[in-house]
Amino acid sequence: MARLGRSTWAFGEHQVAVKAVSTVAGPWESRGPLSDAFDVRLDDDRAGQDTWERAEQAMFRQACDIACDKAGIVASDVDLVIGADLNAQLTSFYIGLRQLARPMLGVYSACASLCEALAVASLAVATGFADVVLAGTSSHNSTAERQFRYPTEYGVQRPPTAQRTVTGAGAAIVTRGRGMWQITHATLGEITDFGVKSPWEMGAAMAPAACDTIRQHLADTGRSLDDYDLVMTGDLGRIGLDILRRLLVDEGVAPESVVRERVNDCGAIIYHPDQPEVFSGGSGAACSTLVTFGHVFREMERGGLRRVLVSATGALLSQVSAQQGETIPSISHAIAFERGD
Amino acid sequence: MARLGRSTWAFGEHQVAVKAVSTVAGPWESRGPLSDAFDVRLDDDRAGQDTWERAEQAMFRQACDIACDKAGIVASDVDLVIGADLNAQLTSFYIGLRQLARPMLGVYSACASLCEALAVASLAVATGFADVVLAGTSSHNSTAERQFRYPTEYGVQRPPTAQRTVTGAGAAIVTRGRGMWQITHATLGEITDFGVKSPWEMGAAMAPAACDTIRQHLADTGRSLDDYDLVMTGDLGRIGLDILRRLLVDEGVAPESVVRERVNDCGAIIYHPDQPEVFSGGSGAACSTLVTFGHVFREMERGGLRRVLVSATGALLSQVSAQQGETIPSISHAIAFERGD
Repeated sequence: MARLGRSTWAFGEHQVAVKAVSTVAGPWESRGPLSDAFDVRLDDDRAGQDTWERAEQAMFRQACDIACDKAGIVASDVDLVIGADLNAQLTSFYIGLRQLARPMLGVYSACASLCEALAVASLAVATGFADVVLAGTSSHNSTAERQFRYPTEYGVQRPPTAQRTVTGAGAAIVTRGRGMWQITHATLGEITDFGVKSPWEMGAAMAPAACDTIRQHLADTGRSLDDYDLVMTGDLGRIGLDILRRLLVDEGVAPESVVRERVNDCGAIIYHPDQPEVFSGGSGAACSTLVTFGHVFREMERGGLRRVLVSATGALLSQVSAQQGETIPSISHAIAFERGD
Repeated sequence: MARLGRSTWAFGEHQVAVKAVSTVAGPWESRGPLSDAFDVRLDDDRAGQDTWERAEQAMFRQACDIACDKAGIVASDVDLVIGADLNAQLTSFYIGLRQLARPMLGVYSACASLCEALAVASLAVATGFADVVLAGTSSHNSTAERQFRYPTEYGVQRPPTAQRTVTGAGAAIVTRGRGMWQITHATLGEITDFGVKSPWEMGAAMAPAACDTIRQHLADTGRSLDDYDLVMTGDLGRIGLDILRRLLVDEGVAPESVVRERVNDCGAIIYHPDQPEVFSGGSGAACSTLVTFGHVFREMERGGLRRVLVSATGALLSQVSAQQGETIPSISHAIAFERGD
């Protein structure tokens, strides 16, 4: 258990385990190729609520309930709740989970928040400052669009570089010891800012951050891409993934054949390319959460993947910063998962 | 070094030190009674920038520069930057500090964020996962008002329960070992929600959260109010402070004479009561930061205070949640400081 290199926390091989996970998917995500990996598939993006914000809160709450159920615990067994969402002031996390009555830490790094939450959760668990942490995120297409771009009711036409914010929520129970999914490392990202200003080109804005964090993770751990069965970024989408792969090759991280085989993106695989209105793929704090806790963890359970790096990617814009013409700083935090036997 | 009780992290007496702090105060704060406690006193709330958002970012950056200077380090000596602000999507933190090129963790619990940032910083430092952490917050009256209530240009009339969001920024260098200011404990808060809906009554909304966290801290540590020279809440203002004192007496935490002598609030003392437009006092993520790092730490240095509990208080509303008629969940996180000799 130690700090490694510039930016990596190493927790040891059998110290931190994800004991259970949950996924609640919105209608678009439930019609995508990973549909059968999700615990709950909603066909109504209001989830029976009167606003999209309350729908997102209800989904987040449901995800926490399911994760606790699967782990065989109740909320009062949780020492600490760590989470995030994309709503200004993290209202989905704080309002959605206000009934839990447990100590809460809100974190925010946009769509990199899942990995930030898991990093802090792992730190607390590995060092004995918490025994059971509930960590999760949510996002909702209609709450996010009206914050970061335009209300969905406007029907604004989008360019092909646009991505669809994922509607969903997911949670994990992180505990000390052995489990199916071990968390072995967390690599904390730094800001990159390549001058992209358009909130419809977030894949391009975030790809350099993902490249940086993956490179740093490999440098800190002395590993190469070959040491991972899969490296998944959070929500670059198909265009951002192409840029990332090119950056990784250009920076000499691995040859093109290895990059093409090992590196993929949650946003690029959560929808069918021919689903309506998904453009270059998925984004949102729940994108990496649904794909990691649904699809990736199932593949690890089935034995197809033993070691996976998830580098969630966050575009750090707000409505105000976009309107004031700011460029979009980006960040990526990575978590290394290993199949525990 | 251990977890204590339900919600407290104990770091030991000489494990975590605040090596240096900085405070950058806006014009209103610089005309208040604590003026000479601040490192920088601005007379222009735009700080020479073209927007209030950029002014807040510049102040945050300046606070970080001063803290590093005072600690005799440069940014590249910092292992980890942890911070927060009140802007949607933490843009003051992420855009303001994007040049630092260090790993960053954004946290958010509204005006309780200073203590959340210091709690995570202390955890990382105490356990050896970081040697040097830069932790800080910012807030700005004009960026906050137009987010949480109305743009200041509207000149909306405010009720006497309203508080003035503090314009300012502050940062701390947190390291392992001994120093003038030791961090000995962090108590992580839970949500309380007493049904207050008005963003102009945040003191009332937050007082129960502060009461809960102070009570829990004392229970977890086996201490009483008498063990502290001072217990400071973050930004309840004068009305919220009155409510808190009554709650502490009613819940049997201490007799009224002790509560009145030991318990105070950063928001209640940062302005002169007769300053224009301060209503019931200060609020904002920088309120507890300016008062703690400026005034309280100076008093500890002078020897007037040996042990202080700061329980910063956060009202977890957003523009959208307020407009949708949600009540305001609140949270308070506490940090115990002790004079190190």
